[in-house]
Amino acid sequence: MTIKAYGAHASKLPLESMDITRRAPGAHDVQIDIAYCGVCHSDIHQVRSEWAGTLYPCVPGHEIVGRVSAVGARVTGFKAGDLVGVGCIVDSCKHCEDCADGQENYCDAMIGTYNGPTPDAPGHTLGGYSQRIVVHERYVLSIRHPEAQLAAVAPLLCAGITTYSPLRHWRVGPGHKVGVVGIGGLGHMGIKLARAMGAHVVAFTTSESKREAAKALGADEVVVSRHSSEMAKYAKNLDFILNTVAAPHNLDAFLTLLKRDGAMTLVGAPAAPHPSPQPFSLIMKRRSLAGSMIGGIPETQEMLDFCAERGIVADIELIRADEINTAYERMLKGDVKYRFVIDNASLALPPQNQDRKPS
Amino acid sequence: MTIKAYGAHASKLPLESMDITRRAPGAHDVQIDIAYCGVCHSDIHQVRSEWAGTLYPCVPGHEIVGRVSAVGARVTGFKAGDLVGVGCIVDSCKHCEDCADGQENYCDAMIGTYNGPTPDAPGHTLGGYSQRIVVHERYVLSIRHPEAQLAAVAPLLCAGITTYSPLRHWRVGPGHKVGVVGIGGLGHMGIKLARAMGAHVVAFTTSESKREAAKALGADEVVVSRHSSEMAKYAKNLDFILNTVAAPHNLDAFLTLLKRDGAMTLVGAPAAPHPSPQPFSLIMKRRSLAGSMIGGIPETQEMLDFCAERGIVADIELIRADEINTAYERMLKGDVKYRFVIDNASLALPPQNQDRKPS
Repeated sequence: MTIKAYGAHASKLPLESMDITRRAPGAHDVQIDIAYCGVCHSDIHQVRSEWAGTLYPCVPGHEIVGRVSAVGARVTGFKAGDLVGVGCIVDSCKHCEDCADGQENYCDAMIGTYNGPTPDAPGHTLGGYSQRIVVHERYVLSIRHPEAQLAAVAPLLCAGITTYSPLRHWRVGPGHKVGVVGIGGLGHMGIKLARAMGAHVVAFTTSESKREAAKALGADEVVVSRHSSEMAKYAKNLDFILNTVAAPHNLDAFLTLLKRDGAMTLVGAPAAPHPSPQPFSLIMKRRSLAGSMIGGIPETQEMLDFCAERGIVADIELIRADEINTAYERMLKGDVKYRFVIDNASLALPPQNQDRKPS
Repeated sequence: MTIKAYGAHASKLPLESMDITRRAPGAHDVQIDIAYCGVCHSDIHQVRSEWAGTLYPCVPGHEIVGRVSAVGARVTGFKAGDLVGVGCIVDSCKHCEDCADGQENYCDAMIGTYNGPTPDAPGHTLGGYSQRIVVHERYVLSIRHPEAQLAAVAPLLCAGITTYSPLRHWRVGPGHKVGVVGIGGLGHMGIKLARAMGAHVVAFTTSESKREAAKALGADEVVVSRHSSEMAKYAKNLDFILNTVAAPHNLDAFLTLLKRDGAMTLVGAPAAPHPSPQPFSLIMKRRSLAGSMIGGIPETQEMLDFCAERGIVADIELIRADEINTAYERMLKGDVKYRFVIDNASLALPPQNQDRKPS
């Protein structure tokens, strides 16, 4: 079937309305009418080909929520009318050790929700800036939040799981003092989730103006990382740091805030490496610098349920699809609190917006 | 009392024979007549002031073994005649969380065996290139190896514990495939210890000529890391990597050999940082880059007992004290299998060697 989508035909072109096709649901497929799609910083990197290998047309979007409109003959976990989500993963090998462990995010054959290989036209996956998507049931999540919160649930599918998974993996909980570096789409979820897990949360921002906002999100303390005297008070003080900043920055400034055996986990993916950390920052207190990428499907369901039980959603600004190019420009300036979400109903409307400037 | 030692009066001068003094044993002190002292790469960095803050005269040496010649009134664990060792630590605060956990190596007030502050003359600690040392009983280790092995036990006090501690902390054991990078003083102990813990050991060296030697040490497989086709076979293959190389090098080449959740731990301390690792090397498989520094006193005793039970010692070349400057030059060329150890009896003899060239 042909549907409306929003995407780009080349790296230097703005996103625009386009028609794409979706396959008819196979035996194990779930067809979802997309209600909302969150806008992730990765979308910008990918659509502009800032990471290698973008295929065009490129339709981004991997924070997808909506309602099931059809299911394949063998689907047992979902039925038409269910509220569901799809995150960053729409396929994987299903038999490797990672898949067997429910860590499909680390499967070597993991297929991203956009820009991944697929037998469907046009030969690569097309994401959630579109009216409808068809996904194997294994990669579909149940949403138990009230429908009124649906738009604000969308960012949980990437920003939520990307921060939840490392907080769980490094066993953050009561009695822990946890740093969250960067208060953007990921960081604001990191603060909410670490707090909900019972940790004492110290938020780090470069911007004095975000101090109150970080407290409002649930941070127990806020440190402006440009102020070295403020930073010095936290030396050897934190059990774990979730670092959400994608821009290259000085890692030693944060590593040295960790206690013995503390870990700092990077979830942001800068195009260029960070300045190299000093080996002594790691050696002196047996610290670790780690990375983490999204999360597996079972853990994504666990995160959604955790958030539903506690009423946790993202803080969002709802936009029409034809506002996406302006939204990207604002994201690059850090001007969003804290996640743009597209109202996918707007895809059916004629564009109203003169939002067509090349980026 | 005045004793003979070997040390340097300034960073640019060679080491030479000198007289130093040791305190009379206090209530908790153990006085040790030093039989042998291993020669660690750190000795060169410190005596040449390649790390900041070397105090002169500098007498290096923190791989000390010998026999107790006197004990203080309150010492209960040692008596005259016991075979004992002293490693990198001769004091710490004794009451912080690190000390309480037996992790004196991470205590902020840890006093190194040389170049640390002390009330004793000349105001900083002087190490094991000397006839005798006086150390608080807490930092003295019992040696249960046969006396005939004593010289080869000396390097266990630094090279042994520095490799044993991370292998234990990251729980290396049967069923694990462990990489050991660098086959020098630390690396050769890493191979022996990882193998003794039951792991399958893959040794990495830049030098084709070390292939057979690494196998002789116990490596199950040896990879010449300059050969990218050999390296490629180990992608996502290892559970843990012990990286003993102190020279700056490409960490990504090794990080990418780790399986999901694998860790590479740095125990070498280069004067300059390594080239910065790619964030994706960490993020894609939730890998960690960590550091580890020596080990605590209880763990050092555990390591010595582990080695005594299994007959594990270092491979050494025994030298006279007056050969130390030549030994340093050979170490800088990697020309030692695998640790020089000073026969401290040679300190009492008149120098025979024209070993006085500035380095």
